[in-house]
Amino acid sequence: MNGAEALLRTLGAAGIDTYFANPGTSEMHSVAALDAVPEATGILTLAEGVATGAADGYGRMARRPAATLLHCGPGLANGIANLHNARRARTSVVNLVGDVSSLHRAVDPPLAADIESLAHTVSSWTRRSLDGHSVARDGAEAVAAAVVPGSAIATLILPSDVCWSEGAQTAMPRPPRAPAPVQDAAILHAAKWLREGAATALLLGGDALIGPALQLAGAIAAATGVRLLTESTIPRIERGQGRPGVQRIPYAQAPAIEALAATQRLLVVGARRPVFSFAGPDGRSYPEPEGLEIAVLSHPEDDTLDALERLAEALRPLGDARNAALPPARRDAPASGAVTPEAFAHSIAALLPDDAIVVEEGLSFGRAVFPAMAAAAPHDWMQLTGGAIGSGLPMATGASIAAPGRRVVNLQSDGAALYTVPALWTQARYGLDVTTVIFSNRSYATLFDEMKRMGAVPGKTASHLLSLAEPSIDWLQVARGFGVEAERATSMEEFNAAFLRSIRRPGPSLIELVI
Amino acid sequence: MNGAEALLRTLGAAGIDTYFANPGTSEMHSVAALDAVPEATGILTLAEGVATGAADGYGRMARRPAATLLHCGPGLANGIANLHNARRARTSVVNLVGDVSSLHRAVDPPLAADIESLAHTVSSWTRRSLDGHSVARDGAEAVAAAVVPGSAIATLILPSDVCWSEGAQTAMPRPPRAPAPVQDAAILHAAKWLREGAATALLLGGDALIGPALQLAGAIAAATGVRLLTESTIPRIERGQGRPGVQRIPYAQAPAIEALAATQRLLVVGARRPVFSFAGPDGRSYPEPEGLEIAVLSHPEDDTLDALERLAEALRPLGDARNAALPPARRDAPASGAVTPEAFAHSIAALLPDDAIVVEEGLSFGRAVFPAMAAAAPHDWMQLTGGAIGSGLPMATGASIAAPGRRVVNLQSDGAALYTVPALWTQARYGLDVTTVIFSNRSYATLFDEMKRMGAVPGKTASHLLSLAEPSIDWLQVARGFGVEAERATSMEEFNAAFLRSIRRPGPSLIELVI
Repeated sequence: MNGAEALLRTLGAAGIDTYFANPGTSEMHSVAALDAVPEATGILTLAEGVATGAADGYGRMARRPAATLLHCGPGLANGIANLHNARRARTSVVNLVGDVSSLHRAVDPPLAADIESLAHTVSSWTRRSLDGHSVARDGAEAVAAAVVPGSAIATLILPSDVCWSEGAQTAMPRPPRAPAPVQDAAILHAAKWLREGAATALLLGGDALIGPALQLAGAIAAATGVRLLTESTIPRIERGQGRPGVQRIPYAQAPAIEALAATQRLLVVGARRPVFSFAGPDGRSYPEPEGLEIAVLSHPEDDTLDALERLAEALRPLGDARNAALPPARRDAPASGAVTPEAFAHSIAALLPDDAIVVEEGLSFGRAVFPAMAAAAPHDWMQLTGGAIGSGLPMATGASIAAPGRRVVNLQSDGAALYTVPALWTQARYGLDVTTVIFSNRSYATLFDEMKRMGAVPGKTASHLLSLAEPSIDWLQVARGFGVEAERATSMEEFNAAFLRSIRRPGPSLIELVI
Repeated sequence: MNGAEALLRTLGAAGIDTYFANPGTSEMHSVAALDAVPEATGILTLAEGVATGAADGYGRMARRPAATLLHCGPGLANGIANLHNARRARTSVVNLVGDVSSLHRAVDPPLAADIESLAHTVSSWTRRSLDGHSVARDGAEAVAAAVVPGSAIATLILPSDVCWSEGAQTAMPRPPRAPAPVQDAAILHAAKWLREGAATALLLGGDALIGPALQLAGAIAAATGVRLLTESTIPRIERGQGRPGVQRIPYAQAPAIEALAATQRLLVVGARRPVFSFAGPDGRSYPEPEGLEIAVLSHPEDDTLDALERLAEALRPLGDARNAALPPARRDAPASGAVTPEAFAHSIAALLPDDAIVVEEGLSFGRAVFPAMAAAAPHDWMQLTGGAIGSGLPMATGASIAAPGRRVVNLQSDGAALYTVPALWTQARYGLDVTTVIFSNRSYATLFDEMKRMGAVPGKTASHLLSLAEPSIDWLQVARGFGVEAERATSMEEFNAAFLRSIRRPGPSLIELVI
């Protein structure tokens, strides 16, 4: 067998069966090898930013990596923005980047580029495979490097001669590395804080936001009265009725400061100390109040579930944390009348189907949604994590492939959608149950807000550079052009009806919500 | 004045007045500064790949750099593919990349990325500006670094505090560096070759393909009987009736070898020794025949016009090269009947309006066009140079902004168009006279060809990954969604009529040519 087939078989044995592909000439042997490895599935995307964003969404839901298949340095470069988001989300991704053949590279042909330097900016592991005898071993190492505790991105560069050379053999998967246990001292310190009852908050991140770890955190909060917080950019959280209430630290600076103002102690659980996305001219980088005490129960790469189990055990005198009741929730009727952020948040919380996956890149208009969704049906919530806009459509695409049978609802700002809009075509091709709601305000509204925050009054040139009008984008035509059903809503009644039609119809559809 | 305004005024004094922008939060002071510098024009693009590709097209036509305004590391990453093409085309570009403020960077906020490493992969000059007092100086240095002989890409990283700090002053433009003169020995050696009359070809590149240098090369060829060749990826050439006939070395390996087979001596004039884009398993990297003698008259960064003047002078005993007659040309009627590569090439050559700019990213279907265009009306021809597809729509956009009043005709493969399709919106917003012809074959046909060349038979999975059908993209809806008029042609008669309508109507339009 050739190197490409040995590689794909090895990746398959290591648990990788999904390839988000935007291949070119130098990847033709890898594409051909997909035919020889029937358990592997190739998903075609029309641009690399879609492939990498889909791998991010897939990894967030599947909790195991997808692979991307990218074409040389420029193809990797096109995918870096969404790999940056994946890195910030701590998603496992394995990138396979084709290149010209090893000897041909020496003559600097047109596509030759510094792939290693590009890869290093988002990958914690990068390797160029040297020959067909080592490529399967390299693949096994790549998967092991991606599935480390806390997750990572691994990039394997594949010169085409490595893929086409015959006589290659598969390699054994590497045993996964277990997460590091948290030291007893950290558990005891956390338990002491929780018993002392000062204004304490748990800052949950990573594994603490899903599954039994989240349930434990909720039970601990119910038993001790501490608040549950999470970072302003959430890779994935289980939310809605029956799930513990977790407050997100707001994105904007003033509300973020306000949200933490009364907190005296912050216990970090699988998260990072919160920072602003941007510092203003005042130079402040952290939302925390002066004098806040911070302790770390677990870092993102630690065994957070184990730490919470031990913390709950240590707290047992406070009550059996595991059996604490969760607050009841009810569902309202959807909103009517004019389209406002609050009305939309109310409607989407009311209408969300059970077990949906919400992918949020709503930016300015979308900020009211998260708080309202505590009352929605149980769902997974994922959002933009690295500030590199253009993540929503691809992430929804990948999440849907990882979780067939579940409705994905992508709440999507119009400006951000335009970076990766051909993702709609991939949704159409594979019949994915994705409902995209475009917040069509025909401007980069976030940037208008930001300019005002900086004390600037946008003049004629600046205003024109922040506006998406002249001409307005006709989202119905764009969506239909890519094979996706679409309708427009200009009132909440229209939106509610369109949304219900969308979630009842198999396959993708798009709603342009005129705001 | 603040740092951003001092920078923009300095760039203006150095000849930069056009900014292709896709700004974000950290660039708001630069956007605001555009209001304060009225001679600066900001052109909004909806994705960074459009901004950088437009800067490439602008630079190729204007022969001076445009600036791009990009948002942090991910924004630069999105623009790298078309900067890679610009680097291969030796286009001058100045990138301004915003970043979070200098001190905030230390807390590793979500958007923080290794901008320098990304920039180095495409830039010959990269600098991070450190404060408001040095930013104008940095801008002057960036322009000087971009306009060096042979052209280059300069990237200036702008932390937002550098832009917002007050008390900044403008800087003087740096004097441009003159190109290096070619040594007498190289002129004499070239003249000797041309006099000896062996099967010699001039391989023209860069400056030798336009203006008086091309005319001189044509005259030398007419006087000596040598052939004029150029590289398979052409940044820009003046072509059509009245222009010297220059044969392009074909992209595909077998025809490229054939084109050079009878050549004994190759004189390189502002070009690079030709290499294949990809080596096949046979390992061959160069199309040249065994025993080919190669000499360099001028490198791309040398003074090629001066070298050709001196060469013509040295050849004077062979006849006055400057006054040699150029071959006459005539224009045919357009083709009729079925849509084939040859029929299309015939029609576009017949119908091209005077003084058009042709931007070609036609890939497989487009390869017949270049030879036919020798008989077209005089035009500039530009094409994909770095193999990073997605260059056509942005390049056409930038070329149109650099050359108002001229019709830009973008011959565009469908697969490549999808990487940067929101460029259509920028064409609509600024009313650009661009005619986009989409070669709609609903597949990555180049890759099918490539797979067959490698001896592989695409199976079910592979075929599905190389097909753009299921669903077919409806280009009329996509174009109209972005505000561009569109029609479909399924025969040459329909195409001819649609093309004539398009070039008579101001503003952009798109023709989906079903092939």
